[in-house]
Amino acid sequence: MSYFGNIGKIRYEGRESDNPLAFKFYNPDEVILGKTMREHLRFAVAYWHSFTGEGNDPFGVGTNIRGWNQYTGMDLAKARVDACFELLDLLDVDYFCFHDRDIAPEGETLQETNRNLDAIVARIGEQMKATGKKLLWNTANMFTNPRFVHGAATTCNADVFAYAAAQVKKALEHGKELGAENYVFWGGREGYETLLNTDMKLELDNLARFMHMAVDYAREIGFDAQFLIEPKPKEPTKHQYDFDAATALAFLHNYGLKPHFKLNIEANHATLAGHTFEHELRVARINGVLGSIDANQGDMLLGWDTDEFPTDLYSTTLAMYEILQNEGGIGRGGVNFDAKVRRASFEPIDLVYAHIAGMDSFARGLKVAARLIEDRALESFVEKRYASFQSGIGAEIVSGKANFHTLEAYALQNKPIVNESGRLELIKSVLNRYLLNA
Amino acid sequence: MSYFGNIGKIRYEGRESDNPLAFKFYNPDEVILGKTMREHLRFAVAYWHSFTGEGNDPFGVGTNIRGWNQYTGMDLAKARVDACFELLDLLDVDYFCFHDRDIAPEGETLQETNRNLDAIVARIGEQMKATGKKLLWNTANMFTNPRFVHGAATTCNADVFAYAAAQVKKALEHGKELGAENYVFWGGREGYETLLNTDMKLELDNLARFMHMAVDYAREIGFDAQFLIEPKPKEPTKHQYDFDAATALAFLHNYGLKPHFKLNIEANHATLAGHTFEHELRVARINGVLGSIDANQGDMLLGWDTDEFPTDLYSTTLAMYEILQNEGGIGRGGVNFDAKVRRASFEPIDLVYAHIAGMDSFARGLKVAARLIEDRALESFVEKRYASFQSGIGAEIVSGKANFHTLEAYALQNKPIVNESGRLELIKSVLNRYLLNA
Amino acid sequence: MSYFGNIGKIRYEGRESDNPLAFKFYNPDEVILGKTMREHLRFAVAYWHSFTGEGNDPFGVGTNIRGWNQYTGMDLAKARVDACFELLDLLDVDYFCFHDRDIAPEGETLQETNRNLDAIVARIGEQMKATGKKLLWNTANMFTNPRFVHGAATTCNADVFAYAAAQVKKALEHGKELGAENYVFWGGREGYETLLNTDMKLELDNLARFMHMAVDYAREIGFDAQFLIEPKPKEPTKHQYDFDAATALAFLHNYGLKPHFKLNIEANHATLAGHTFEHELRVARINGVLGSIDANQGDMLLGWDTDEFPTDLYSTTLAMYEILQNEGGIGRGGVNFDAKVRRASFEPIDLVYAHIAGMDSFARGLKVAARLIEDRALESFVEKRYASFQSGIGAEIVSGKANFHTLEAYALQNKPIVNESGRLELIKSVLNRYLLNA
Amino acid sequence: MSYFGNIGKIRYEGRESDNPLAFKFYNPDEVILGKTMREHLRFAVAYWHSFTGEGNDPFGVGTNIRGWNQYTGMDLAKARVDACFELLDLLDVDYFCFHDRDIAPEGETLQETNRNLDAIVARIGEQMKATGKKLLWNTANMFTNPRFVHGAATTCNADVFAYAAAQVKKALEHGKELGAENYVFWGGREGYETLLNTDMKLELDNLARFMHMAVDYAREIGFDAQFLIEPKPKEPTKHQYDFDAATALAFLHNYGLKPHFKLNIEANHATLAGHTFEHELRVARINGVLGSIDANQGDMLLGWDTDEFPTDLYSTTLAMYEILQNEGGIGRGGVNFDAKVRRASFEPIDLVYAHIAGMDSFARGLKVAARLIEDRALESFVEKRYASFQSGIGAEIVSGKANFHTLEAYALQNKPIVNESGRLELIKSVLNRYLLNA
Repeated sequence: MSYFGNIGKIRYEGRESDNPLAFKFYNPDEVILGKTMREHLRFAVAYWHSFTGEGNDPFGVGTNIRGWNQYTGMDLAKARVDACFELLDLLDVDYFCFHDRDIAPEGETLQETNRNLDAIVARIGEQMKATGKKLLWNTANMFTNPRFVHGAATTCNADVFAYAAAQVKKALEHGKELGAENYVFWGGREGYETLLNTDMKLELDNLARFMHMAVDYAREIGFDAQFLIEPKPKEPTKHQYDFDAATALAFLHNYGLKPHFKLNIEANHATLAGHTFEHELRVARINGVLGSIDANQGDMLLGWDTDEFPTDLYSTTLAMYEILQNEGGIGRGGVNFDAKVRRASFEPIDLVYAHIAGMDSFARGLKVAARLIEDRALESFVEKRYASFQSGIGAEIVSGKANFHTLEAYALQNKPIVNESGRLELIKSVLNRYLLNA
Repeated sequence: MSYFGNIGKIRYEGRESDNPLAFKFYNPDEVILGKTMREHLRFAVAYWHSFTGEGNDPFGVGTNIRGWNQYTGMDLAKARVDACFELLDLLDVDYFCFHDRDIAPEGETLQETNRNLDAIVARIGEQMKATGKKLLWNTANMFTNPRFVHGAATTCNADVFAYAAAQVKKALEHGKELGAENYVFWGGREGYETLLNTDMKLELDNLARFMHMAVDYAREIGFDAQFLIEPKPKEPTKHQYDFDAATALAFLHNYGLKPHFKLNIEANHATLAGHTFEHELRVARINGVLGSIDANQGDMLLGWDTDEFPTDLYSTTLAMYEILQNEGGIGRGGVNFDAKVRRASFEPIDLVYAHIAGMDSFARGLKVAARLIEDRALESFVEKRYASFQSGIGAEIVSGKANFHTLEAYALQNKPIVNESGRLELIKSVLNRYLLNA
Repeated sequence: MSYFGNIGKIRYEGRESDNPLAFKFYNPDEVILGKTMREHLRFAVAYWHSFTGEGNDPFGVGTNIRGWNQYTGMDLAKARVDACFELLDLLDVDYFCFHDRDIAPEGETLQETNRNLDAIVARIGEQMKATGKKLLWNTANMFTNPRFVHGAATTCNADVFAYAAAQVKKALEHGKELGAENYVFWGGREGYETLLNTDMKLELDNLARFMHMAVDYAREIGFDAQFLIEPKPKEPTKHQYDFDAATALAFLHNYGLKPHFKLNIEANHATLAGHTFEHELRVARINGVLGSIDANQGDMLLGWDTDEFPTDLYSTTLAMYEILQNEGGIGRGGVNFDAKVRRASFEPIDLVYAHIAGMDSFARGLKVAARLIEDRALESFVEKRYASFQSGIGAEIVSGKANFHTLEAYALQNKPIVNESGRLELIKSVLNRYLLNA
Repeated sequence: MSYFGNIGKIRYEGRESDNPLAFKFYNPDEVILGKTMREHLRFAVAYWHSFTGEGNDPFGVGTNIRGWNQYTGMDLAKARVDACFELLDLLDVDYFCFHDRDIAPEGETLQETNRNLDAIVARIGEQMKATGKKLLWNTANMFTNPRFVHGAATTCNADVFAYAAAQVKKALEHGKELGAENYVFWGGREGYETLLNTDMKLELDNLARFMHMAVDYAREIGFDAQFLIEPKPKEPTKHQYDFDAATALAFLHNYGLKPHFKLNIEANHATLAGHTFEHELRVARINGVLGSIDANQGDMLLGWDTDEFPTDLYSTTLAMYEILQNEGGIGRGGVNFDAKVRRASFEPIDLVYAHIAGMDSFARGLKVAARLIEDRALESFVEKRYASFQSGIGAEIVSGKANFHTLEAYALQNKPIVNESGRLELIKSVLNRYLLNA
């Protein structure tokens, strides 16, 4: 059966097409800077938003009309697998991502829960084999169930820590089974509601212990996925420990975990933390930990995680600009649509429209970013801007030869200091020109 | 002459006093937890706001009526020194803090600038000797002059880097001369306006080079002050590199600077970064880098650094709660009023009222925090909350004996997981009770 | 049976009590400015948060442990009524508030839904008669059900508008039946997600038509409750039409509805709109539309409606300061705890602790505000500050005699303009002194 | 002499041009929807930012390198006039805007200040006659001078009110003399720092009195400019009375001023108030008060008025979408660049680049918006979305025939309620397609 109607595969028709069920910019086999769009972008569909989500919000119950909602329990879980692979096929998307609890219901006991999960993982594995689709990453949902009310690895309850460990152990095994390229840690409730009842030091120490155990266990079972931390500053807790990229880096440094982790940067989490998406990507990139991205966008006037499908071309362009300059591009990571259709976009076809919108936006961003790089449209300006560090006193600073004595002596010559304009307004014009012309 | 009128020293009169020129809570020699209030709080007046600031804002020129404004140039600089020591005496405050450019005007050349500075530092030194007042910290202003338009240590112009180095070299020398207990690095324009014209990696590398040079030079001249980084997320630049405590920690770790620096945490900078003041203090404390504080408060509905005098007793209480639990309390640091009277509070006496307001608020906060700690009003709840990590599986987790195998085995026993309420509402009641009764 | 354990009625024990199950400040029969605390505050419990809410959030299912959850359907609805009256009794609270859908489940048809509602309203009426408890206000929930996905009175679907009308008609009838003192319109989904698909003019016109119909129908059935609009700027929709008090006033003016409505001001909605609670109360007060309040507080660092129990004594003091100066005080309105226990405070007793916290905080706020007013601690300063409008040119301005000619002639005399300090810092000290001493 | 170098007039070269000193999208004589771009956009240069501003910020002094800074006093004022007309000529911009204090320095007395102003107004008038350039609007700066520390029309000091009246009287006369098409009231310090020392009712009453006097005087002297209020929520004061469009409307309604005023909507003020630019324009439009716009943009991650030149094509498109649908388009108003070059863009040529960036962005926005309207790309969807109000029960609602009785009867038929998707994601795709293809 079909969950999305008889619409056929979405094809590339070019920017002039007004067919809502066609790509205008995403042309998967078009080669850009030596790789196809498909290879650059490695799109993934997020199981939780697109197949498990119901369209509820804090003030209303679910609105989503979904064919699979005729089922319940394990039948529902199986139907969702089918729906997922149907959508992947329709959209020509190669990857998907899931939390354990997205794909299978909990049972009465952990054993039963695991059996449910095993069964669905097996079904997913079969469909992967049949279709060639791949698992970008999996993860464990340790925030929905009431047992995690005080956190998982940062809980105040040792029994919960143990349960979380069992859950991640299983998730690592399933990741290995399905050949996941990455494994993600998003700290759902790893944070606090109030400092007044919180032992932050113990909680962070425990979080680090948990991470080390996960690293050890993955090595033990030979699961060589890239491990990713996904920063978020707040929500659901008042303060989340993995606030932003810099905070995650401090944590990784502090606990000797830096060699084992990269970051999964999400656009909406970046803006909630007071940063642009591209800022977080740059921080990750220059620290060698840009691993993957969660592609979405927030509403800058709303203070919660809206997880909208990404359509802002400035954001997709600047994101791809960072990714293209990252060594190896997006590498083993990908562009995962951690995005949900608005509650008012409740028809199944909206899922298709929304992914087309997101894929086209990233495809356009890729193209614009590639042209900027090819033309060195910004790079030549930047290079000239910092030229004073290529020779003379600047070179001595960079090489480590200078010290406060030599620099003071230089300054006391009272050579006139001449700065040049940063040209922000001109640069913004250039960006607009590339956006429209690329 | 007197710059503040014939008002006499401000004395402690107790909470029932309605004398606006008396302390109601700050009783300097009252002993709390084994130390006097004076020793706990180590108050400092900030030279820039109280003696150099003019009461201007982006939409208006200065409004401040100040006796010293009858002078100009070096005469003005000298008058400000006198005013500072008069206020310290009036308020019975032991410490003050300054930027180099607050205390003396720039000259035509760096040599002349340094001569101006030397003269005023000498005058300050004399007054210190005469009065026993002390320098909590000094620092270099590397953001006001147009030469720093693109930053100082993170400039794109090597000549500016050299100038900044010369300036900090001099500041370290003056710090040593005056016996400063700390030296502060606030990254005025160390940040960016747009990533599009910025080589963030080079800028951060240079910032670290600058810091290492400063550490080396201080050691060379035997200046043993505590070095402090003061985080701020934005303003004046769109993004400041020392965004918050965690970001500063990541930087210190990354560049091998952690052994040499602690943090100076400012309340208003914390809230601009999306954190509470107490959060930033906690992060600093548990990482062993809580060095000093800039006492002020922001307006939570305004998005810029308002630097108001601290009067929120919740904030002062929770700040002192962290400081009292810090090893050695505030240590060599202090409580520096990096706060300015509102532009509409332009009379000299407002400076007195404002400091009384701030000092009383911190004194009350100290007293409330001390009572909370003495009674273990929160601690006993926290201890019980995490008790599961004291024995059994919890103790194995903390001691490093547990791993994913043992934890999974434990979880598969399906022992019912019982969480207990976090009691946030009750805790808030307790806090209010202490606030009013302490 | 008891839903809250065998704890007995909560009694006033005074500020020194450390009994968590006692009031420290709320002394219902204590007379302040000529009325008892009970009369001033008119506390109400909010049915939705305290009896219908489950402790879920966007990332997790309900955590609340509640005795009534052993029931389902109409039995559950009945049990909640019993629980509500038990809590009112325990807390000695006189009022409660509800939405229609809080108290009874929807049926298959509107007829069945109404029958369910009738039955529960009857049960509530009986308990009211038996206990003397009163209905502060009721309202209609027109945001949870998927039919309201595009709004209720501002929907794009006329059938939904009709349904909403039927629902409010019934709610008005029930309000009359139970003797509700007020009827509230909170515009749940009356707003938009994107302007691009929205006819804002038609939606606002329809909203006004709806309000006029409600006014007409209430008059027709002789329901003389005070009608209240409750502003909120955002959430659940991206933009809510009743953004804040001023926006609601513009709407009421524009559509000739001002004579028929007052406002219900909520603290957390105020701060989400970028205002303080007291600002919204002041705007309502000076426009003669301060009707009632929803007592809670937000987290100023979080961008969503957290609906915390009010414990900030500054906020409760300044709120009561406005209410005491309102003609008739809170009048037919009251102090409704539109607040929910944190998801981590999931035990029934937390509901008791939370209400005690809120009631004590408002009681203390009342007392402090009353003392400020009795002593004219702020008023005498304000009166003097504006004294120039009592005589001379100021009196001419206020009386309407002045015009640009006379004012220019006055200004051209070049009389020196002398402003006086606004004394904000001193005023904040005074406020702290009253907070602690009152 | 030339203040901008020998660069020649900026010409339209089309979107493929990479000449930084050419328009890529602004083609003044191109006809769109029956009017030229020039007629649609009515661009204006803002005197204060471009000729009076110095490039200072709260942490640094001015950086701007400007040829006219060789002069002082009235010579400087005259040089700025020349520079202004040179830039208008270079950019082919027809309009400019100023505050009184931008164009001429204050003297010792109001008489001398007025003489300075008269002289510069005369010079401006001559240049207008010589060049055909026009004054879009003028206004009075009542916020920079310390006398306005507590406000102008909302001051607590009647002498200041009188001074402000004299200042606006003069400004109205100058507006008439120069044939200004509009006169703007931006409430610089019309607001409060703290409610605790503020008589909000008196201040608002006085503000209304002031507005009525201005209306009367303009009528008296036959100055028929359009009067505009420019809303802003905060900065410089903590709360500004003209918070946003809705608040201004409530004020105008309340004081009988609505017939005399329209609004000047600024993009950055909109976002500071928690709204999109297009929201504020829509509110103004459907209330018949969309008068003019201040074209700029804010940084959504910064909480102050950054006044950047507008380059976000989404914003310019949606702004022009509202303006094109406004009756008479922008009418007597215009697109005024209330924008300043970044402090780091301190060379004179940056003023040219910045205006080109802004003009091109609005030209592109105009074109995209016009195409959306011509194709009814969004309108046809909106029309269909609300079709249920065209007939049947919907038509009865709109026509006023329906009431709660008829609507309840309709609802009780239990006709299934069918909503349709709002299609936000598809609409965003359509917008992107038009943005790139128009």
